[in-house]
Amino acid sequence: MTALKTDDFMAMKGAGYYSQATIGAKHVMDNAAGLILDALERRPLADDGTDFTMTDMGCADGGTSIDMVGRVLSAVRAKCPSRPIRMVYTDLPRNDFSQVFKNVHGLTGLETYAKSISDLYVFASATSFHRQIVPAGSLDLGHSATASHYITEVPMPIENHVHMVGATGATRDAWRAKGAVDWENFLLNRTRELKPGGFLALFNFGIDEEGRYLGSTGGVSMFDTFDRIWREMAAEGTITEAEVLATNFPQVYRTVEEFRAPLDDPGSPVYQAGLRAEHVETRVVRCPFAVDFERHGDAAKFARAYIPTLRSWSEPVFLAGLSPERTVEERAEIVDAYFGRYEAEVARAPHGHAMDYVHCYMICRKV
Amino acid sequence: MTALKTDDFMAMKGAGYYSQATIGAKHVMDNAAGLILDALERRPLADDGTDFTMTDMGCADGGTSIDMVGRVLSAVRAKCPSRPIRMVYTDLPRNDFSQVFKNVHGLTGLETYAKSISDLYVFASATSFHRQIVPAGSLDLGHSATASHYITEVPMPIENHVHMVGATGATRDAWRAKGAVDWENFLLNRTRELKPGGFLALFNFGIDEEGRYLGSTGGVSMFDTFDRIWREMAAEGTITEAEVLATNFPQVYRTVEEFRAPLDDPGSPVYQAGLRAEHVETRVVRCPFAVDFERHGDAAKFARAYIPTLRSWSEPVFLAGLSPERTVEERAEIVDAYFGRYEAEVARAPHGHAMDYVHCYMICRKV
Ligand SMILES: C[S@@+](CC[C@H](N)C(=O)[O-])C[C@H]1O[C@@H](n2cnc3c(N)ncnc32)[C@H](O)[C@@H]1O
Ligand SMILES: C[S@@+](CC[C@H](N)C(=O)[O-])C[C@H]1O[C@@H](n2cnc3c(N)ncnc32)[C@H](O)[C@@H]1O
Repeated sequence: MTALKTDDFMAMKGAGYYSQATIGAKHVMDNAAGLILDALERRPLADDGTDFTMTDMGCADGGTSIDMVGRVLSAVRAKCPSRPIRMVYTDLPRNDFSQVFKNVHGLTGLETYAKSISDLYVFASATSFHRQIVPAGSLDLGHSATASHYITEVPMPIENHVHMVGATGATRDAWRAKGAVDWENFLLNRTRELKPGGFLALFNFGIDEEGRYLGSTGGVSMFDTFDRIWREMAAEGTITEAEVLATNFPQVYRTVEEFRAPLDDPGSPVYQAGLRAEHVETRVVRCPFAVDFERHGDAAKFARAYIPTLRSWSEPVFLAGLSPERTVEERAEIVDAYFGRYEAEVARAPHGHAMDYVHCYMICRKV
Repeated sequence: MTALKTDDFMAMKGAGYYSQATIGAKHVMDNAAGLILDALERRPLADDGTDFTMTDMGCADGGTSIDMVGRVLSAVRAKCPSRPIRMVYTDLPRNDFSQVFKNVHGLTGLETYAKSISDLYVFASATSFHRQIVPAGSLDLGHSATASHYITEVPMPIENHVHMVGATGATRDAWRAKGAVDWENFLLNRTRELKPGGFLALFNFGIDEEGRYLGSTGGVSMFDTFDRIWREMAAEGTITEAEVLATNFPQVYRTVEEFRAPLDDPGSPVYQAGLRAEHVETRVVRCPFAVDFERHGDAAKFARAYIPTLRSWSEPVFLAGLSPERTVEERAEIVDAYFGRYEAEVARAPHGHAMDYVHCYMICRKV
C-alpha cells in the first residue's frame, strides 16, 4: 500500500472549534502545570541574560494551553528578569496558526499572558515534531500535551478495528513497533534541541497500568463505538469495506513501560544522548461532559455537548478513510451522518459514555 | 475620533490569492536580491556556529519572496556551513500563516528552498513590525518588502482623498508626521534586534525623486481612480459621505529624503543607536499586467488580470470604510460593485492604467 503520511491530512478543525470543544484537554494541562513548576524549582535557572525557549508541540489553536503556559512563563520571568523568552507554538502546516496568534495576542475572548510578560517573543513553527524544530542546544523546556501519539504514518491497515487499541496479533505488534520507532525518534530530536539541564514536560495519551486509555475507563468504549458505527454504515452499504479498512487513526497509545523503555535502558540512543526520566505518572482526568451530565441528567443535552469533543480530533480520520472518488460534499455528508448516529446513540442510552482522558505524564531532563 | 488601529483590520486576502495576484511584488524582490547578496559580500560572515537569523517582515503568504529568500539563505549556507539558520516570517495575526507554511514547506505548487538547505528552522511571528519581533541582538538580516508604508493608525481623516498622496496642507503634514514617527520607531526596533554588523534590506513603497509612486508614473493615477469611483458611488447614494471620509489607506508613502532623515542625522536616536544607510536607490518596476497588455492588446483581458492585483491589498481598506451597521454581505456586494466599475473602466479605456511599482531600496547596517 502507498503509505498515507499523517502530515498530509491531519489538521484539527480550525477557527477556535478546537479549544471550545476540548475543555477537557485544558483541564489536563491546568492540572499538570504543577509538574512543570516543580521541575523548574528542582534545578534553578540562571538569570544570565540568555534566551529562554519553550515549545508547545502539537498546540492546535493554542487555546487549551494558554493558562498553563502563562503560569510557567510568569514563573520563568519572575526567576529570570534578564532573559528574553521565546515561546514557540508548533503544529502541522495545515493547522490554523492565525487562530493561535489571535488567541495568544489577545484578539479573541481568551485571557492571555502575552501582554503581561516582558521581553517575550512568540513564534509558530510548522515543522513536525518527528523532526528537529529548533536549533540544537537552544531549548530550555519542551512541552507537548495530547499529541505525541500521532505517528508519522500508518504501518499497515488494521483488519478488525479503526484504532490500534483494537488490533491484535501481528497487526498489533506492527503498530507497537511503529510506535516505538517514532517515540525514540521523537525523544532523540528533543534531546538534540535541549540545552544541558533543560527538560521536557510531555503529557502523552497512553495506556495506564490498569489498561485504561482515552474513552475506555470502564464504561462504554469510545473507540469500539467509533468502530462499530462505521462498520454498520458499511453493512448498510453507505460506505465500502475498503473504506473501513482505509480508516485508521494514525495514532499509537503506548504503555508506561513503552514510554519508559528508551529512557531506562542505558544502551538506548536516547539514554546515551543524555536524556533521563525525572518523573513519570499516569492520571485519569474525567470527561467534563459526562461530569456535567451527572449533574443535569439531560441525555440529549449531554449528547449534543459530547459529540463535538470527539469530532474535533477524529473527523479528519473518517474523512481521510473515504474514497477520494467521492465528492467533498458527499464525504462531508457521510461524516455528518456518522456523528449524527453517534449522537443519537448517546442521547438514547447515555450511561457509560465518557471521554475520560488517560495520560502518562513525564518530565525528562537532559544531563 | 476613535483611532482605528491598523492591526485590527488589516490582512491580505488569504488562501494563496495574494501571491497569484501579485507577481509584480515578486519581480521587485527577485530583481533586488542582488542588493542583499552584495551586502553579504561586503562584510563576510564568520562561520562560527552561531545562529543566523533572517526575518521577512510583512510577508503575506510568503510566496512572493520565496525565490529571493532561497537565494539569500543558500548563499549564507554556502559561506557558513556551521550556522543553524532561523528564517522568521512575520505579519499581522490575521494573516494566513498556514498558507505561509504550506508554501515554504512545499505543500503547494511553489518551488521552495526549505528542503535543500540543511539545519534550517522556519518560524512565523505575528508581532507587528512596529514592535520588537525577535530578542535584542539576535538578528543578522532584517528584510521587508512593500510593507513598511503601513502605519500604526490613521492620524486623521483625509477630507478630499482616500490616500495621503492626495492630501494637502495641514492634513498632508499630519500624515507625513505620523509617517516619520512610525519610520523612526520601525528603525529603532530593528536596530535593537540587529547584531552589530547585521543589516536591513528594506524595499519600501515610496515617492521617488521625480514624484512618482505606486500606480502613478505618468499615465492614469491609480489612487486618483480609487478615490474618484468611491466618490461617484457616494454621489449616487450607494454609500454615504461619512463612509468615504472613513475610507483611508493606513499608509504613508515617504520620500527618499524622509527615508534617509533618521539615518543621516547624527542627532537622531536611530543614528545614535548605530544604524547607517549603506545603499539607497529608487527603482520603478513595470506593472506586469500592463506589459502583457502591450503584447496582447486585449483590453477586457487586461482589465480582468489587472483588477485582482489592486484588490489583493486594497479591498480591506474599502470594506473597513463602510459602516459596521451594514451586514457583511452588503459590504461585500458594495465592494464587488466597486471593483467591477474599476474593471469596466479599464476594459473601456485601458491605456495609461498600470500599477507600476515605485520603491526606495535601502541597505542599512548596524555598526
Ligand atoms: C489532540 S490535539 C492536542 C492539542 C493541544 N496540545 C491540547 O492538548 O489541547 C493534537 C495536535 O497534534 C497535532 N499533531 C499531530 N501530529 C503532529 C506532528 N507530527 N507534529 C506536530 N503536531 C502534530 C495535531 O495537528 C493536533 O493539533
Ligand atoms: C503588500 S503586502 C507585501 C507582501 C510581501 N512582502 C511582498 O512584497 O509581496 C504588505 C503586507 O504587510 C503586512 N503588514 C501591514 N502592517 C503590518 C505590521 N504592522 N506588521 C507586520 N506586517 C504588516 C500586511 O498584512 C501585508 O501582508
